[in-house]
Amino acid sequence: MPNPIHLLFGIHCHQPVGNFNHVLETEFQRAYAPFLLVAEEFPDFHFACHYSGWLLEWIANHHPSFIDHLGRMVARGQVELMAGGFYEPVLSAIPRRDRRGQIEMHQAFLQAKLGARARGAWLTERVWEPELVSDLVACGIDYVTVDDYHFQCAGFDREQLTGYFVTEDAGTRIGVFPIDMQLRYLTPFHPTEKAIAYLVERRAEYGWPAVTIADDGEKYGTWPGTHKLVYEEGWLRKFMAAICKHELIRPATFSEYRATHHSQGLVYLPNASYFEMSEWSLPASKAVGLTRLVEEEKRRGELDAVKPFISGGIWKGFFVKYPESNRMHKRALALSARLDGATGEAVNEARRHLYAGQANDAYWHGVFGGLYLPHLRHTIWHHLNRVEACLGAVAPVDAWDEDADGFDELHLANGHLHATVNLAAGGLLAELSDMASGINFGATIARRFEHYHIAAPPKPETQEKKEAAVQTIHDIAGRAMEKARGELVYDVAPPLSGRLRLLAPGAANAPRVIPGGEPPETTLSLRPARRDGDAVVADLGNGLTSASRYELLEGRAALRLTVRLRGRRPAKVDRAGIELYFAMPGCDSPATHFTWSGREAEPHGLHNPAEAADATGLTLTDESVGRRIVVTFADAATVTIAPMRTVSQSEAGVDVCYQQSWVMATWPLGTASEVDWQQTLTVEITDA
Amino acid sequence: MPNPIHLLFGIHCHQPVGNFNHVLETEFQRAYAPFLLVAEEFPDFHFACHYSGWLLEWIANHHPSFIDHLGRMVARGQVELMAGGFYEPVLSAIPRRDRRGQIEMHQAFLQAKLGARARGAWLTERVWEPELVSDLVACGIDYVTVDDYHFQCAGFDREQLTGYFVTEDAGTRIGVFPIDMQLRYLTPFHPTEKAIAYLVERRAEYGWPAVTIADDGEKYGTWPGTHKLVYEEGWLRKFMAAICKHELIRPATFSEYRATHHSQGLVYLPNASYFEMSEWSLPASKAVGLTRLVEEEKRRGELDAVKPFISGGIWKGFFVKYPESNRMHKRALALSARLDGATGEAVNEARRHLYAGQANDAYWHGVFGGLYLPHLRHTIWHHLNRVEACLGAVAPVDAWDEDADGFDELHLANGHLHATVNLAAGGLLAELSDMASGINFGATIARRFEHYHIAAPPKPETQEKKEAAVQTIHDIAGRAMEKARGELVYDVAPPLSGRLRLLAPGAANAPRVIPGGEPPETTLSLRPARRDGDAVVADLGNGLTSASRYELLEGRAALRLTVRLRGRRPAKVDRAGIELYFAMPGCDSPATHFTWSGREAEPHGLHNPAEAADATGLTLTDESVGRRIVVTFADAATVTIAPMRTVSQSEAGVDVCYQQSWVMATWPLGTASEVDWQQTLTVEITDA
Repeated sequence: MPNPIHLLFGIHCHQPVGNFNHVLETEFQRAYAPFLLVAEEFPDFHFACHYSGWLLEWIANHHPSFIDHLGRMVARGQVELMAGGFYEPVLSAIPRRDRRGQIEMHQAFLQAKLGARARGAWLTERVWEPELVSDLVACGIDYVTVDDYHFQCAGFDREQLTGYFVTEDAGTRIGVFPIDMQLRYLTPFHPTEKAIAYLVERRAEYGWPAVTIADDGEKYGTWPGTHKLVYEEGWLRKFMAAICKHELIRPATFSEYRATHHSQGLVYLPNASYFEMSEWSLPASKAVGLTRLVEEEKRRGELDAVKPFISGGIWKGFFVKYPESNRMHKRALALSARLDGATGEAVNEARRHLYAGQANDAYWHGVFGGLYLPHLRHTIWHHLNRVEACLGAVAPVDAWDEDADGFDELHLANGHLHATVNLAAGGLLAELSDMASGINFGATIARRFEHYHIAAPPKPETQEKKEAAVQTIHDIAGRAMEKARGELVYDVAPPLSGRLRLLAPGAANAPRVIPGGEPPETTLSLRPARRDGDAVVADLGNGLTSASRYELLEGRAALRLTVRLRGRRPAKVDRAGIELYFAMPGCDSPATHFTWSGREAEPHGLHNPAEAADATGLTLTDESVGRRIVVTFADAATVTIAPMRTVSQSEAGVDVCYQQSWVMATWPLGTASEVDWQQTLTVEITDA
Repeated sequence: MPNPIHLLFGIHCHQPVGNFNHVLETEFQRAYAPFLLVAEEFPDFHFACHYSGWLLEWIANHHPSFIDHLGRMVARGQVELMAGGFYEPVLSAIPRRDRRGQIEMHQAFLQAKLGARARGAWLTERVWEPELVSDLVACGIDYVTVDDYHFQCAGFDREQLTGYFVTEDAGTRIGVFPIDMQLRYLTPFHPTEKAIAYLVERRAEYGWPAVTIADDGEKYGTWPGTHKLVYEEGWLRKFMAAICKHELIRPATFSEYRATHHSQGLVYLPNASYFEMSEWSLPASKAVGLTRLVEEEKRRGELDAVKPFISGGIWKGFFVKYPESNRMHKRALALSARLDGATGEAVNEARRHLYAGQANDAYWHGVFGGLYLPHLRHTIWHHLNRVEACLGAVAPVDAWDEDADGFDELHLANGHLHATVNLAAGGLLAELSDMASGINFGATIARRFEHYHIAAPPKPETQEKKEAAVQTIHDIAGRAMEKARGELVYDVAPPLSGRLRLLAPGAANAPRVIPGGEPPETTLSLRPARRDGDAVVADLGNGLTSASRYELLEGRAALRLTVRLRGRRPAKVDRAGIELYFAMPGCDSPATHFTWSGREAEPHGLHNPAEAADATGLTLTDESVGRRIVVTFADAATVTIAPMRTVSQSEAGVDVCYQQSWVMATWPLGTASEVDWQQTLTVEITDA
């Protein structure tokens, strides 16, 4: 064979920790299993596979014959396995000890189930950071795959991006294969001839010895339209057959190629991911600006030339963009630090939960739901709370700035609840973790502006797509967003329990949102609160202050909140209210419902708003997790409850997701010019 | 004072390791000393100072009273000291152990000389990398200053960039002050009122509690025109007086501010430096593209809006851009690894040399000379060779890929010389280190295209500059480049000794350069060579191969090179030549000269080309270092010698620098169609 071009083909298969069983089953039946069956017919089609640990474990438990099948293909040298963090964490965002722990866990699992450790790593979301090198190498990894965009950002021409390069950190080296974007877009959405022609051209034109394509395994069967294309219409079989018989193309695994070829030289990559990630990780207003720049350069026909010079944020920017993600991340860091020094039997279990709690999917949001998917977010908190349960509660009352927002939080814990009072947000409840179930009923999420709310997402490769047989995710999402626009509303303040509201006559009981239009509301403090003895004091302006006391009741999963308001009564205010937000894992499914305390036998669903006068409390039940929240007011109140839903883009188009139930209880404030008003309520979590 | 805006003022003073004594003296007399004298008059003008360790040590040795003076200002709380790597390395580019070692060395020096350890660090060239956090914190550092550009890249609005933020890595946290670019451009190049007005406006408009300005101390006295402006015309005194008496402005040190103010929240910074660095670190052809994009956006009036989305390369890209820098860096890494395991008396001395050899300045090139300044490059090699001398020579003959270019180098060492034969470059001598003097006579540099060769460098802040009283460095450089254009020439092949040249009748004896125009030269192999026993074999095409044997002569600083050429004689070739390149630390000053072996008593200077027929060798002498290179040919040859000069931009405009002497010896090749030709030469380094 005269100097063939090597096709270095890889698939990356992953499902988020906490994803539904039926989704995994579908992915398995329609993508993972048929792919392997077709590949088995072509023993010369050498390629690499990465299955994230949690997914592989699920497969091993549910479809052990697949593991045998895969193992045979590994044994005959057709398949090279790749490793990663077991639960697919973004490696740069977790401490070094956990990074190594998770990769080793994956390696051990591969060894045990498939008889081979991996030499290559799939980098979660291709988030690169130089210090990964030594951790990867310490775990027996000697190469990774990243996007060609990473290299282009570093100043490389696309023509240079063949084979593999070497990067180093502090003298430790690792191979880096650049994933070819053009070939990635060609497969499987174009006739197989196009991919073949592309390879042959690259060989002839640039003298390339190799091209790397490594992409989501779900593209082969569960992305919209692909099952029909790839299997029923036979794209994959045709592709593999054509590759195997082509005299100028040689399929090879990454390690086979490395064993026989020099590197292309040295590279230093920025701590980037793929281009789109740099858009998603920006604050939404900035993402609008970036999207606009990209669109303009596209219109000018300059995008290809300038794209290497254009980038947005970095992955960790999601912690700044989404405090909800940040709180999980910082809790995971705190627990990791505690676990680091811990001994005893529970440590192994705790470590596994910690690792599961580091799974990337719920920490960010791009074109997949991610953070906006309540079941993923609840899964993270569940695992983190399990770690805490293993290690034991933190001190009963303590204050530290766990979330790094510049202000301490008050942490209350009694072994049944871990409640966190956020001072920066005004002294509100940012967490209500129920240790028995592991659920954080405070894992709410704000309805906030996302850049795709105002525009269809940018469409990469417009020219290419016109020819494509299958619609891309971007197309579908753009159209669906149009339909969901009516649902869009943005919260002025984060949805955290305990906020005091002062209402004018006629003001609606509703969370404050943008666009507004409600009657004036005098005071909605968004300023930080301060700690004063055992209370949290917020200055509401004009000599009015509130003092909130949060207490956990001993031996119970119960929190008592006493709010005292003192000072000059603002004009046009006649009621005071306290807001509560409960994130129910069962969402607004039939498994969740509520009743007004001591009123009706028939429970209400959580999907509609409701209001009751003279209510002494309410009870929210989530049968999906067998837990109940009992809210009791010292004085009967007018109480409103309503679902809060977010609008987010997803691979299926647009998700309108229930996130939490908003509850507001209001009481008359009296007419005296000097106010001294106090209310107490309790929130208790029990078995359903 | 009603909510003043804090002015957080810092200066960073630095001189490259190896810089000339007279330059340091000038900097001291015209910038560092007068600045402190003026500042002493204003005890309320609290500010921060960073002096890189090597500079501070020089000052302590040459002007001890300055240290006493500074110490008094520290003691009275006016000055806060900042630390860094002692020799001002780019911290992200050196191993963690050296990073900590260098910062601790600086801290210890501050403690010993000034009675205080630093709590803040100046980040060399503001090159950020997340993993620095834990090293800085381990050395007692709790904040750093970076550019506002870093924050803008992370998606922050300029309006948000007040006070300080917190970033973390694996849970370890550090404060980060964003340096305000606008204020930086206002000082000292505009009337003091402008800076004052800027501060007052920021306070009123955005409610800013603080602005950080931290900038080069040399801006206050030695940048062109600044001594007159800052001291003779009294800019600095006026500025400090105005700040101190303004009721809405309070000067403070970083630590004073941190002690009384919350952070502005969380930030994650990309591994960036300032904007211009991202341009410089790109390959030159890409830097042209970036410059063009920037100019276009400026023309459209969009630059401010899109700049946060625009960036070029990262600092470590210089190792890819400049193999000359990479070779030093990879040697330093290798020596650091050896030193890590070493014991004995020499270790401390070796460590100090290693740290000095990590000084950033010679590893890169932007608007200052850097890598293009031979005395800086030779200083780095000198220190690195001193480390090797302390640790002992490497194995006599060994091969490994030290420079990470994908191919092994052959390392030859005998305690007198360390010669490195680069296989990737075709089997040429990439290093000729003389252990007695520490000089690497192979520390050459190629004449290569730089993006500013074709265009005046971009001029930031055009509008502002029209008003500025003092010309910026960019202005001056742009004009000077025009004048130097005649000197521009680019090498086709790296200037490494041992290359075989095959010349047609009439072909000039000259290095191959672009633009060309020379008569055709059949073969100039740029392909990698391979090792074959004790020879290095290069395939020259058409059945012609060369085998080069490099040997060190025992007990002497002498290298013997035997080149054998075999195969079909190419058409139009009648001579063979061997190229040698010697980088003389004395450059083409009067201290350097050469003689034809056994010919004339009167030596020639190195600044002009010369040629001799029938020469049995030549001797190059460098009296500045007391060393002599004796080259001897087995057969008399026609020999040409010529200086090679580079054209690079610098703060003074343009530098045309002697880098190395090119020597080519040619011999007739005969007329037979089958060639079997061999030559031997020796290069010996002796006392001058």
